[in-house]
Amino acid sequence: MRYVHFSPDGHQRLLGVLQGSTITSLGHATLEELLASGTNLTAYAKAGIVKGTEYSADTVRWLPPLARPGKIVCVGLNYADHTKESHFEPQSYPTLFPRFDSSLIGHLAPMIRPLVSDSLDYEGEMAVILGAGGRHIPKERALEYVAGYSVFNDGSVREYQFKAPQWTVGKNFDGTGAFGPTFVTADELPAGGAGLKLETRLNGKVVQAANTSDLVFDVATLIAIISEAITLAPGDVIVTGTPAGVGWAKEPKLIMRDGDVCEVEIEGLGVLKNTVQDEKPAD
Amino acid sequence: MRYVHFSPDGHQRLLGVLQGSTITSLGHATLEELLASGTNLTAYAKAGIVKGTEYSADTVRWLPPLARPGKIVCVGLNYADHTKESHFEPQSYPTLFPRFDSSLIGHLAPMIRPLVSDSLDYEGEMAVILGAGGRHIPKERALEYVAGYSVFNDGSVREYQFKAPQWTVGKNFDGTGAFGPTFVTADELPAGGAGLKLETRLNGKVVQAANTSDLVFDVATLIAIISEAITLAPGDVIVTGTPAGVGWAKEPKLIMRDGDVCEVEIEGLGVLKNTVQDEKPAD
Repeated sequence: MRYVHFSPDGHQRLLGVLQGSTITSLGHATLEELLASGTNLTAYAKAGIVKGTEYSADTVRWLPPLARPGKIVCVGLNYADHTKESHFEPQSYPTLFPRFDSSLIGHLAPMIRPLVSDSLDYEGEMAVILGAGGRHIPKERALEYVAGYSVFNDGSVREYQFKAPQWTVGKNFDGTGAFGPTFVTADELPAGGAGLKLETRLNGKVVQAANTSDLVFDVATLIAIISEAITLAPGDVIVTGTPAGVGWAKEPKLIMRDGDVCEVEIEGLGVLKNTVQDEKPAD
Repeated sequence: MRYVHFSPDGHQRLLGVLQGSTITSLGHATLEELLASGTNLTAYAKAGIVKGTEYSADTVRWLPPLARPGKIVCVGLNYADHTKESHFEPQSYPTLFPRFDSSLIGHLAPMIRPLVSDSLDYEGEMAVILGAGGRHIPKERALEYVAGYSVFNDGSVREYQFKAPQWTVGKNFDGTGAFGPTFVTADELPAGGAGLKLETRLNGKVVQAANTSDLVFDVATLIAIISEAITLAPGDVIVTGTPAGVGWAKEPKLIMRDGDVCEVEIEGLGVLKNTVQDEKPAD
């Protein structure tokens, strides 16, 4: 089942199910609430879809599948080829950093290049959304805690990422964390989201091409390691890291600028498309 | 005005005002809600206190002043002497990292030493709570956005902090982020919380002694710099960093263990006291 949050009018936030190019509204419930209550998402969609209003996917505003996750834990250096191009040593423990929800945007929303820096870069990634929480989750059972998957473009302002030893600011500019287009329930995908082709395209040209099976720390391992320290909760998001091909590592550097179109496609999860737009100067 | 969140019975979460050793309940409103709605916190307390039930501060459970802030942005390396003892270069840009709210505990709650590591350390810090939000907040006006201040013990599991280039895990173990005892409205303190003595004591012995005027990046500067990238919101928390004297930098290392009592005192903000307790093994 493919869930979306969308707005038919630019004001309301509705939950819906995407089938083909039609979104059927399930009303004002939110994925956050359904995940927190442990609702069976496949059954819920099937029941609601019968009486829901239909919208053409072309006419609505797409919103992030989750607007305010409790935690967004991003993984750095989780593909060996990207670790190498970034001049880091291979890691024996995952490199984790946060996104604040203030940085999230949905499918087709403008990705904002801030005026303070000309170093906005893409990072195509698979996102994992938890359906159950806990601490000390054993790796062998970790995939039972996954509710579904999505696509993420971890837009990074490189100059700010590397201004200090911690990457937080460069990874959290407003309007840089693209998330969507949909939330796909885990039953539609291979276990752990493994074996999916991932491709990032800038203005139609392939800039990243990889497979989620190449993750250094796979989904089950990430859940086990994070929950060794931190209680995970339903609705928490883990963004699993990016493969080689980021613009900042290219020679010369490939930087995203106003009007550039960036697409991240993951097999079975869809295409997340955003157009870069310069930040509007304050008055 | 000194606000607290507390539980009289271990179940309810009430808002209250602390005067001397008496907490007067203001009912079920939360500081998060009051901050989001822009309520005048001094007037609200004065109005509510007239009819509130009184509790002895000795008999209640203290909870963190904010349970689920939108963002908790922590600052590393923000006192020159701590930067030096940690063998980092002086920074020209603040080092920011997150806390997830899953790590928060209140005054007098046990601070949990995880079983996986014998490297739990203290970090006494001043916390700033925003009362208004915005982007591109000018430094000259930044203090107008501050609602109040509190005390934070940024409990750090050092071995995990340094397992990877990013510190996230070592800074986010469950039960390590002590916050409180109270939220003190900004009108009771010097502008920017500057000039306050800060002292951390472990089992009664002074281990950190500093003054908030020694911050490399002061409160107004932090708000201006963070909001250059990130929209700040009412209720967001900035934890301003720790001075020299952390246990991990001492020779031999000073590590907190079960039964140790750690107190962080900041002039005008009170004493945040927590006893270290070993994590209970899972069954």
